[in-house]
Amino acid sequence: MELLKERIKKDGKVRSGNVLKVDSFLNHQMDIKLFEQIGKEFKRRFADCPINKILTIESSGIGIASIAAQSFDVPVVFAKKNTTKNIDGALYSAQIESFTHGKVYNVIVAREFLNPCDNVLIIDDFLANGKALMGLSKIVEKSGAKLCGAGIVIEKGFQEGGKLLRASGMRIESLAIIKSMTPDGEIIFED
Amino acid sequence: MELLKERIKKDGKVRSGNVLKVDSFLNHQMDIKLFEQIGKEFKRRFADCPINKILTIESSGIGIASIAAQSFDVPVVFAKKNTTKNIDGALYSAQIESFTHGKVYNVIVAREFLNPCDNVLIIDDFLANGKALMGLSKIVEKSGAKLCGAGIVIEKGFQEGGKLLRASGMRIESLAIIKSMTPDGEIIFED
Repeated sequence: MELLKERIKKDGKVRSGNVLKVDSFLNHQMDIKLFEQIGKEFKRRFADCPINKILTIESSGIGIASIAAQSFDVPVVFAKKNTTKNIDGALYSAQIESFTHGKVYNVIVAREFLNPCDNVLIIDDFLANGKALMGLSKIVEKSGAKLCGAGIVIEKGFQEGGKLLRASGMRIESLAIIKSMTPDGEIIFED
Repeated sequence: MELLKERIKKDGKVRSGNVLKVDSFLNHQMDIKLFEQIGKEFKRRFADCPINKILTIESSGIGIASIAAQSFDVPVVFAKKNTTKNIDGALYSAQIESFTHGKVYNVIVAREFLNPCDNVLIIDDFLANGKALMGLSKIVEKSGAKLCGAGIVIEKGFQEGGKLLRASGMRIESLAIIKSMTPDGEIIFED
């Protein structure tokens, strides 16, 4: 998606540890007009799938998934990272190791919001080592729902997540795949 | 907002400790079509304000704020509850005591995303004791931006947050104000 790649080149900042900061438009400040284009692109790529629900994970996925949901005309469920007072009853859960936060956490989805008749699209902002996506796909599997695929805004193609998950049979559509990032800030995309 | 009140009566569940579960449409599964109506109502109520930025807080506020942002044609900034690798540089921060989680946490916004020329609308899903809203308004104040007001989806009118903050001069527009909830599940709204 050219518009997105241009925006990443313009406003993305490369930091040590293979961190790409895109917080001016994607995951701290959110450019909702860009999200509308991202949502339309996900719909175009998954037009062949009978998606009736979008699953994402707090927090950075929620804004993107909410706007994309308008193109699919479906509700969104976001997986929660901590069990709170307001979640009770039966849950699906999975463990996820976070690259960004450097720790392992549980994610949960209330059982009532995923069931075997659902056709689920997972949406997230980043795909790097793939742990979040693996956790979410485990939750979909436990629920008996069908996973149609995953829509990712930015994939770090130089990390192994995308390769591993595609090899396992998951359909992944990433709108920008980064081939490499240099310490002086150059970002090169895969074709 | 009648549509919202009807939905709360239909799908809201009263739990012990004055907890209102609305996770089937507001803060776990999200009814994006309802969010569109909520966003339009916020725009109608704040039509007199030159709002150029919406501020919310992760996680439950993000979906609502993202959809509402379409009615205002502005970007959204969401305050983060934990400092991560991806946030660096200068920050505005405030401490918030969470009713839901029973703990105190720091919320932060990167300085570059709030500045004195901004006219800010805060959006959140709930207003109860008002701690989140107080924290967010402190961040707006520190930035030098103008706070136009706060748009709240559900206010628990029987808790003190709304009264205290309105008395302090904050403009708050709550789309559904709950007067009382009974243990057998009855929900009564203020007129």
